[in-house]
Amino acid sequence: MAKKIILDCDPGHDDAIAMLLAHGNPDVELVAVTTVVGNQTLEKVTRNALAVARIAGITGVPFAAGCPRPLVRTVETAPDIHGESGLDGPELPQPAFEVDERHAVDLIIDTVMSHEPGEITIVPTAGLTNIAMAVRKEPRIAERVREVVLMGGGYHQGNWSPVAEFNIVIDPEAAHIVFNERWPVTMVGLDLTHQALATPEVTERIAKLGTRPATFVGELLDFFGATYLEAQGFAHPPVHDPCAVAYVIDPDVMTVRRTPVDIELRGGLTLGMTVADFRRPAPADCRTQVAVDLDHARFWDLVVDALERIGAGGDAAAAEAAAEAGSGTVGAAADATAEVAGEAGERA
Amino acid sequence: MAKKIILDCDPGHDDAIAMLLAHGNPDVELVAVTTVVGNQTLEKVTRNALAVARIAGITGVPFAAGCPRPLVRTVETAPDIHGESGLDGPELPQPAFEVDERHAVDLIIDTVMSHEPGEITIVPTAGLTNIAMAVRKEPRIAERVREVVLMGGGYHQGNWSPVAEFNIVIDPEAAHIVFNERWPVTMVGLDLTHQALATPEVTERIAKLGTRPATFVGELLDFFGATYLEAQGFAHPPVHDPCAVAYVIDPDVMTVRRTPVDIELRGGLTLGMTVADFRRPAPADCRTQVAVDLDHARFWDLVVDALERIGAGGDAAAAEAAAEAGSGTVGAAADATAEVAGEAGERA
Amino acid sequence: MAKKIILDCDPGHDDAIAMLLAHGNPDVELVAVTTVVGNQTLEKVTRNALAVARIAGITGVPFAAGCPRPLVRTVETAPDIHGESGLDGPELPQPAFEVDERHAVDLIIDTVMSHEPGEITIVPTAGLTNIAMAVRKEPRIAERVREVVLMGGGYHQGNWSPVAEFNIVIDPEAAHIVFNERWPVTMVGLDLTHQALATPEVTERIAKLGTRPATFVGELLDFFGATYLEAQGFAHPPVHDPCAVAYVIDPDVMTVRRTPVDIELRGGLTLGMTVADFRRPAPADCRTQVAVDLDHARFWDLVVDALERIGAGGDAAAAEAAAEAGSGTVGAAADATAEVAGEAGERA
Amino acid sequence: MAKKIILDCDPGHDDAIAMLLAHGNPDVELVAVTTVVGNQTLEKVTRNALAVARIAGITGVPFAAGCPRPLVRTVETAPDIHGESGLDGPELPQPAFEVDERHAVDLIIDTVMSHEPGEITIVPTAGLTNIAMAVRKEPRIAERVREVVLMGGGYHQGNWSPVAEFNIVIDPEAAHIVFNERWPVTMVGLDLTHQALATPEVTERIAKLGTRPATFVGELLDFFGATYLEAQGFAHPPVHDPCAVAYVIDPDVMTVRRTPVDIELRGGLTLGMTVADFRRPAPADCRTQVAVDLDHARFWDLVVDALERIGAGGDAAAAEAAAEAGSGTVGAAADATAEVAGEAGERA
Repeated sequence: MAKKIILDCDPGHDDAIAMLLAHGNPDVELVAVTTVVGNQTLEKVTRNALAVARIAGITGVPFAAGCPRPLVRTVETAPDIHGESGLDGPELPQPAFEVDERHAVDLIIDTVMSHEPGEITIVPTAGLTNIAMAVRKEPRIAERVREVVLMGGGYHQGNWSPVAEFNIVIDPEAAHIVFNERWPVTMVGLDLTHQALATPEVTERIAKLGTRPATFVGELLDFFGATYLEAQGFAHPPVHDPCAVAYVIDPDVMTVRRTPVDIELRGGLTLGMTVADFRRPAPADCRTQVAVDLDHARFWDLVVDALERIGAGGDAAAAEAAAEAGSGTVGAAADATAEVAGEAGERA
Repeated sequence: MAKKIILDCDPGHDDAIAMLLAHGNPDVELVAVTTVVGNQTLEKVTRNALAVARIAGITGVPFAAGCPRPLVRTVETAPDIHGESGLDGPELPQPAFEVDERHAVDLIIDTVMSHEPGEITIVPTAGLTNIAMAVRKEPRIAERVREVVLMGGGYHQGNWSPVAEFNIVIDPEAAHIVFNERWPVTMVGLDLTHQALATPEVTERIAKLGTRPATFVGELLDFFGATYLEAQGFAHPPVHDPCAVAYVIDPDVMTVRRTPVDIELRGGLTLGMTVADFRRPAPADCRTQVAVDLDHARFWDLVVDALERIGAGGDAAAAEAAAEAGSGTVGAAADATAEVAGEAGERA
Repeated sequence: MAKKIILDCDPGHDDAIAMLLAHGNPDVELVAVTTVVGNQTLEKVTRNALAVARIAGITGVPFAAGCPRPLVRTVETAPDIHGESGLDGPELPQPAFEVDERHAVDLIIDTVMSHEPGEITIVPTAGLTNIAMAVRKEPRIAERVREVVLMGGGYHQGNWSPVAEFNIVIDPEAAHIVFNERWPVTMVGLDLTHQALATPEVTERIAKLGTRPATFVGELLDFFGATYLEAQGFAHPPVHDPCAVAYVIDPDVMTVRRTPVDIELRGGLTLGMTVADFRRPAPADCRTQVAVDLDHARFWDLVVDALERIGAGGDAAAAEAAAEAGSGTVGAAADATAEVAGEAGERA
Repeated sequence: MAKKIILDCDPGHDDAIAMLLAHGNPDVELVAVTTVVGNQTLEKVTRNALAVARIAGITGVPFAAGCPRPLVRTVETAPDIHGESGLDGPELPQPAFEVDERHAVDLIIDTVMSHEPGEITIVPTAGLTNIAMAVRKEPRIAERVREVVLMGGGYHQGNWSPVAEFNIVIDPEAAHIVFNERWPVTMVGLDLTHQALATPEVTERIAKLGTRPATFVGELLDFFGATYLEAQGFAHPPVHDPCAVAYVIDPDVMTVRRTPVDIELRGGLTLGMTVADFRRPAPADCRTQVAVDLDHARFWDLVVDALERIGAGGDAAAAEAAAEAGSGTVGAAADATAEVAGEAGERA
């Protein structure tokens, strides 16, 4: 049976690919998508999430906008990596549906509480504000969630500072809350994701698929590759977020190590560091583990396979189906939702 | 027209008196009461709030339980001041009604958003977890609230540390959020409330009223006086929380000074200090002010007056009314609610 | 018998007056003067100290230059208060003698260790770098010193930040060392020194003396008054440093309160705060006390009296004496020492 | 020409081996040995240093005791690793000479200033209190020292906390001073020294030498191996301190990487971490580098070679020489110095 996941994200180029992987792979089921300020403002990442949904052909899954700012710190976004839109590169379609009326925090709580204990996995690929707010508002979700598999942090690597990663450092208090709750946490950090490079061989495989979603991913990787080269000196861009989804799909895609992890909240040089203690074997009650080594081929096979399964994706697939059925009205609904992102932004 | 207030509290001896003052005074109207962990656990303070409501005869006002723990720090309560129940001293009646189904955070948001801008004043007399969560979940309340008048902090005095006060230091991150939002904040801190001493003259005036609510207050002050003498060396107990309510009723009951205030989050000796900058006149955009000097007589007149207006209070008043009307069924409903606090605790 | 003091200073307008007070008053004896970076660079404050010595007619007392930078932090000076020279306003004479060959840290150690236990009082009126270095290099001075009476800090007032004072915040680690050593510490902080205002009545009394040292003080106060008005809005300048000397001369010139004091090293808003704990009576082993209320008249009487006793001061006094004795060669030696400050700066 | 080094140490098992390596190797010349509180109290490590000197046959080199406590923090020693004496295991001889009268801080300054610029290398294998004090007292040594090659820290490893190493964390402020001065710093940290394991093959080679110094090293390694197994789970003990000396002798014994390094002073989880920034190539003005990979064979060849060259070592060598010369008075002087350590402790 497919594992049910809530994807909490801030698309974001790699978030978009994470969403496509989650949608295309049969071993996970997207039961909710929530957005949070991060790579760009809440308004932008929410609009992007809906656009990706249209491209991917995701329907029937509630999307909800969450927190427009971190708990304590001021907003910090990443335009140098993701551009002004948060998803620069491809042209984005209008959303095909509107965001859920609920706040992301409530959608997370409702989803977890309305499923059986152990049924829902939370997969955050952004700052942890929504997740922290949810578990503080409804503490019982901590025992009810199967696990939290998050992209963020790094035990020996940083990007926003020498030792801190963006998703953690933009809301370190939220990260502290999430890492110290009673649920299992798998940290898929930079140590792992810097191995998930989109090499030319990878981009060629994706290009060959020739579908609209694959072309979209290709355009994302073109832009992402350029900014990662410019901003951080990477020859090929590390595609962080799908790694967390991949671990939920197939834990053997990477090795992990159980170890205590906590978040530095006070450091002058180390604020937001995910401090792992490798000095001794993890104690019996340790609920955190960190991702160590990626099976690069296996990972990209998962991504390519998901894109293949998605096929023509959203409107195109619907159009094909409609063409076969002799109908051409798909897309009309989408026009009605053009202001969705604006609304989400306003509410937030 | 009476000012509408949300009382966010953790009864707590002085919280109870604050609630009585707010209920008995005609110039403020309680539109919601919310509870939060602080003087005791969420379960206990919620039960206490409902018990006080019964004694005061508060009806038709939603009471909702909020956060059972601070945002980032671990729970710290104050049994040395408020006893194991959080309201040691008097015998407490069973609640006469149940808590609202909503989370306190949502009740706060709903109440503010369903009133006109500038209509609602929030009066926190506890840790600021609920208020911080509310404004992070629904940022628009910051512009819609009339003002936040809180008991907490101290610009030159501390109690839980040399320079920090309990309500702030138990959740300094929440306090940081509240003090840095766009709403006006009046800090009624220890500098002011240590002037609100329940002197023998005060307790005699209250005793003379002879009503059940007045007796209840007398018993609270007996216990509170004993613990304050024991724990902090006060000859007469400082009755903190009603000072914030009194300021909303009558700003002339104290002098205030506009000054920037921020919360220390990192200090080794100063964690949770409310740092005020008195070096220069406050800048034009300063939204914070601190309470300085109390008109002791005027303050206690307000409290005594409120108790007089409440009269026989809850069941007693109802019983009197019933007796006059020839009916004796009051209190039956209360028995049905005996498990209310348990439920609130469980939910939280 | 006069109390023997080491004056550790960074002249500095008020340091200069402190030096004059110490030299002119018969109840204290200057046994060493040491300088440290603070109001200006070490080179400048050392030159200034020697110039003040010439004006005051101080001879036979070793002056030594100390640390040119704080222990951990980078150098911060106060040109907005003391000008580019550190003693802007009066024209400064060439020094009449050279600095001691020893480092201030060693002069402090040597002086303390070569006197009987309890004989030497250290009076720092600058950052505490020299004193901290001395007690770390030779821990035995902590038990041998009579007491440390320092100008710095403030339990309820700050100047360089809302809650921190310049002398402490420029080297908080040094202050932490000094406040936590085994010697008695009297903190004469802003709470006290902001009462030591040079009112017009005071400046008139000084002006009437008509001597060169008095004129010098008048010029210092003119400049100091102007910068204090400009930078901090004081109508009359607070003359900090002589207050510490005055306390050594006559403890009744101010009230003090015994209370634990420690230095905040980590705070984001409170770095360098002198945290005093007034919540309870000081414990029996408490070695720190803070100055509270100044006897303004008594304080300025001490200053004026010292200026009267100094009379014509340095070269003038010598010249008078020489004239009486029929000799006119005074001052020749001074010319040979013109490069003294340069040397001190170079060594440091 | 042999490089002249000042060894600043806290023997300490691996410090003792570092001293033997420095003494026995012809490419470095010990010009001073200074001691500082660390593995044990100043008194104990100073006595140990003198005992090691006797075993090694070091003569004509000044040994001076330095600081008995860190700059700001309280004393922390490591009896679980080095035993109560700081050098548990072997029986220690009485010192053969007394400590220098000078404070270690002054000996360091005098040594550096009396040699040509670029002549002296400082090799700290302990907390950095002495070195920090020296460069603060005499800033010119920063430009005059050839380089500082220190054992301490770790860019990806900790021992006293998840991310901090003992020598740094016991005096992080001193480390901050040393790492931020203008001299070149090579950090030989745990990343490197955890490769310098005393494997059975190594201990056998040493045992075969059969000399008193070699036997002494064998006994040190026996004790050190046992405590490292017990306290930190190492199968073979990492012999940290000689790695720093080995790098001075032969930089090719390890690879190094130039990278900015700074010390975390405020972190709750990361206090004393040596934060290295590997995200980008080091800037042109970067003066710090970190040791990465050890040539294990080459390193131990250096140690064994030094022991061979030392031969019978101290009294034994002298006795042999004396026997050859027909004289037997060696060692008499030593008895006169039995109280040396006591004096050093007292002074400190």
